[in-house]
Amino acid sequence: MSAPLYEGKAKIVYATDDPQVYRTYFKDDATAFNAQKRGQISGKGAINCAVSSYLFRVLAQAGVTNHFIEQISEREMRVQAVEIVPLEVVVRNLAAGSLCKQTGIAEGTAIAPPLVEFYLKDDALGDPLLTPDRLRLLQVATEAEVQHLQGAALQVNTLLQAFFNRCGITLVDFKLEFGRDRQGQILLADEISPDTCRLWDQQEIDPEKRILDKDRFRRDLGNVEAAYARVLELVTQQAEL
Amino acid sequence: MSAPLYEGKAKIVYATDDPQVYRTYFKDDATAFNAQKRGQISGKGAINCAVSSYLFRVLAQAGVTNHFIEQISEREMRVQAVEIVPLEVVVRNLAAGSLCKQTGIAEGTAIAPPLVEFYLKDDALGDPLLTPDRLRLLQVATEAEVQHLQGAALQVNTLLQAFFNRCGITLVDFKLEFGRDRQGQILLADEISPDTCRLWDQQEIDPEKRILDKDRFRRDLGNVEAAYARVLELVTQQAEL
Ligand SMILES: Nc1ncnc2c1ncn2[C@@H]1O[C@H](COP(=O)(O)OP(=O)(O)O)[C@@H](O)[C@H]1O
Ligand SMILES: Nc1ncnc2c1ncn2[C@@H]1O[C@H](COP(=O)(O)OP(=O)(O)O)[C@@H](O)[C@H]1O
Ligand SMILES: [Mg+2]
Ligand SMILES: [Mg+2]
Repeated sequence: MSAPLYEGKAKIVYATDDPQVYRTYFKDDATAFNAQKRGQISGKGAINCAVSSYLFRVLAQAGVTNHFIEQISEREMRVQAVEIVPLEVVVRNLAAGSLCKQTGIAEGTAIAPPLVEFYLKDDALGDPLLTPDRLRLLQVATEAEVQHLQGAALQVNTLLQAFFNRCGITLVDFKLEFGRDRQGQILLADEISPDTCRLWDQQEIDPEKRILDKDRFRRDLGNVEAAYARVLELVTQQAEL
Repeated sequence: MSAPLYEGKAKIVYATDDPQVYRTYFKDDATAFNAQKRGQISGKGAINCAVSSYLFRVLAQAGVTNHFIEQISEREMRVQAVEIVPLEVVVRNLAAGSLCKQTGIAEGTAIAPPLVEFYLKDDALGDPLLTPDRLRLLQVATEAEVQHLQGAALQVNTLLQAFFNRCGITLVDFKLEFGRDRQGQILLADEISPDTCRLWDQQEIDPEKRILDKDRFRRDLGNVEAAYARVLELVTQQAEL
């Protein structure tokens, strides 16, 4: 067990013997609203590690290069070490969250074609939304990289939407992170889980009951653990078909 | 004196006998940070009315169609009645204000080419920054109108930058509002004043002393009235050359 390279809000990143490989450990810690709200979701680490592992495999099979190598314990995966591009790439199929708060668009409004948005990954600044011009000004990624992120995000959206649909889940929106490997290649990284996706149960029409993601924690809706467990169950069933 | 059509934070809009003409009355009321901070700047109404009148004339002479007809009293002008497009169009030559707060870019950083940004004019939502995609989603203006606003804003910037330079003032950034007249033509409207521009005295290098605009009020820098009066003096001198 080496010392952590970095401890984030939801995961701990460790080096391994291979400098090109990291180990990520998924915690139960949950934060929301730029870490103003903090708590624990019991069992979340194991669920997010498993869900992410399934989804990274699904994406890799469809040709989306990503950092996932293998799951090595209930809460740990081995991943390609990357230098994270400090952007949160958000894809929105239905309006929710900050988009609604900021624009007044009603929650659940269909957005077609889907919206790809870039936020600066910077907790101190509160992960601000970036216009394309601001993204260019900040020079956190080259124009070619931004094009690649945009295209990859839409491709991931198409694949995840189809996958979650087969699970009976609507993929409302999600956040991706990407990184550069030693060769400068862009890889999808981080996690894809109920912490980073908005997921609605298609069998529920009640606008609160259908929520299967971190919004249950953000909005104090209760049954947080049960919702996460349900996602894992549905994803596992589908991934094993 | 008819009843006001609308009272805003800084002006009151009145109808006139001519349905295509409004009268705007400039108040001393000052607000900042989405009206969380409120106060008065004594004499501001008269100064902003005079400065705006000068600048609208300068712009009209250079071919920028705008709502200004004539100044009819110290605090009142007659303007073309328009239906305001609910957008604040901001042009930035140097980084300041919310751009710095949100992105961490240092105040005073030169931005070339200048940035044109769109904010939704909606006090209840806090005038949120819009990406081009969000602007499209909200449908507050057609694509052609947005193109026009962008071009007009840059043209106004070129003209005002040159004008203020001759006054010994650096035009850091400013906010414009546009409206549609009865024929659907887009006209520059509202006001152009130390309330809506960041203006730095080129003879001062001290980063606080040089400020000649509403940032003195926002940031409690004192000498607010003197700064506004100085702008009027410099603009008047230049406009009369
Ligand atoms: N393959 C990877 N290589 C390097 N860093 C990674 C990789 N995947 C994810 N990370 C980073 O690991 C850190 C820890 O994750 P997390 O706890 O979610 O952090 P945060 O508090 O920034 O959300 C984040 O900075 C994330 O970007
Ligand atoms: N020519 C015009 N026709 C109609 N409305 C106008 C015109 N020029 C400015 N306005 C509007 O007058 C209102 C009053 O101005 P102001 O007090 O600055 O309002 P606000 O509180 O929205 O900033 C604003 O809504 C502004 O958009
Ligand atoms: Mg994270
Ligand atoms: Mg105003």
